[in-house]
Amino acid sequence: MTKINIGYQGIAGAYSEMASENFGNKNFVKINKNNFECFGQNTFEEIFQKVESGELDYGVVPVENSLAGSIHKNYDLLAKHDLKIIGEEIVHVKHQLLVLPGTKLKDIKEVYSHWQALAQCEHNIKKFLPDVKVVEYFDTAGAAQMLLETKDKSRAAISSIKACAVYGLLVLKADFQDDKDNFTRFVVISKNFIKLNGSANSKFKTSILFAGNAKTGFLFKALACFSLRDINLTKIESRPIPKSPWDYYFYVDIDGKYDDEIVKYAIENLGQICKFVKVLGSYEKLK
Amino acid sequence: MTKINIGYQGIAGAYSEMASENFGNKNFVKINKNNFECFGQNTFEEIFQKVESGELDYGVVPVENSLAGSIHKNYDLLAKHDLKIIGEEIVHVKHQLLVLPGTKLKDIKEVYSHWQALAQCEHNIKKFLPDVKVVEYFDTAGAAQMLLETKDKSRAAISSIKACAVYGLLVLKADFQDDKDNFTRFVVISKNFIKLNGSANSKFKTSILFAGNAKTGFLFKALACFSLRDINLTKIESRPIPKSPWDYYFYVDIDGKYDDEIVKYAIENLGQICKFVKVLGSYEKLK
Repeated sequence: MTKINIGYQGIAGAYSEMASENFGNKNFVKINKNNFECFGQNTFEEIFQKVESGELDYGVVPVENSLAGSIHKNYDLLAKHDLKIIGEEIVHVKHQLLVLPGTKLKDIKEVYSHWQALAQCEHNIKKFLPDVKVVEYFDTAGAAQMLLETKDKSRAAISSIKACAVYGLLVLKADFQDDKDNFTRFVVISKNFIKLNGSANSKFKTSILFAGNAKTGFLFKALACFSLRDINLTKIESRPIPKSPWDYYFYVDIDGKYDDEIVKYAIENLGQICKFVKVLGSYEKLK
Repeated sequence: MTKINIGYQGIAGAYSEMASENFGNKNFVKINKNNFECFGQNTFEEIFQKVESGELDYGVVPVENSLAGSIHKNYDLLAKHDLKIIGEEIVHVKHQLLVLPGTKLKDIKEVYSHWQALAQCEHNIKKFLPDVKVVEYFDTAGAAQMLLETKDKSRAAISSIKACAVYGLLVLKADFQDDKDNFTRFVVISKNFIKLNGSANSKFKTSILFAGNAKTGFLFKALACFSLRDINLTKIESRPIPKSPWDYYFYVDIDGKYDDEIVKYAIENLGQICKFVKVLGSYEKLK
């Protein structure tokens, strides 16, 4: 049996890798242990291209963080590429203060991480590392890898528990972020609609992309297609349409499956008032 | 008469400085020439703080680019600080390929700019500078300033026509961006509501921030407050609420003034169904 290839952005130890492994474990491990592998990619665009070309079977990309908001690049790529969303994954982001074995708090002169992780640990850095230089790094897992490579005990990295294991580091302070409620939501993209595992009482979610005329009440009418049928909206996002200043695409996530009768009617109705409608996929709802 | 202080993010020659000067020229120059001055600030946060403390009279911050989308940091700062929006400015972004006097196209080995400007000139860089190294710089105007300081004729910068003048450079290729429809929309923030110049037939816009319960149809009901009164929505944006995962603030721009009768009723109605409503301001509509 051929191995299933799953792509994520970043290097080993990234939160995206954790999301990819969660997805693989849930859906494929039952058939055969080690029947999937996760591959780090340089950019989000590369993931979309490789899923389109068939080099990757699935891609796992972040679309939203509960503190920082949407990752708009990936919404734009969903509009640009003709792929389906077949699942979602949610990772509870827990940053760890990582050091080389033998390093003590007082040895640390510099702390490295992605700027967003540094911002999320701002108060704890001030509290535990008041005189330490804060250095931005391109990636959280990259900072952990750099620690291993430089063997520099005057440095610490803020990264995931997974990166800690991958690069043989020690956790000096666990759960180092200021706000414990830090979640990232990923979507799983695929070339085709695929029905994955899910229990009998699974709930579903459908992602839809649409655009209309910027006429009075367009968005209201579009949302009416769902509200008039008591379909719950869990997310809305607007993005500029290239070459059409101040016009927007809208992305919505709704409760239900695309072939549920009321969802089908709602999408038909939406088609009657929009210039453009694309159903990105229906998948098991996690939150 | 005291000079009016206007703050923007960046250094002289930034597109934000152009927006600030447009705002100043339109509103204050009639009273007295040179009666306002624009000051570059390090961060958006600094602008908000200085307008709050009174050190700056006005701040001019970008909220949206027609190609890249919203500048979310500034939407978050509008929620955090108690300031008013009293105007908008739109700058047509035109990137220029700038060099030191005497430099020819074939002399260029490296081109510097902000990553977003580089991305917006990607095709022209490939066409005119195929073997040149592309180097990301923190700021478009900063790249122009660096050129002047290093006097290095093997370098070019991509920046505004304003930066060209400020740093004594030459335009080697004008309007160097791939897509001509590149606009940035700025809002002008102030401590108090202020009525600025505007002709008798000026149209107005009102910006509102609100949040509700994530119940079925909440956003639909919120938008109904406007649609039922034929009030046009020109922009909607959602942002995560800190410490409340998957809950959102919504920002809307609507046509009309906060004291127009139907707008007043709409805002009252919105207050009845939201947990939180804040009118950020009414101001002359440019687009």
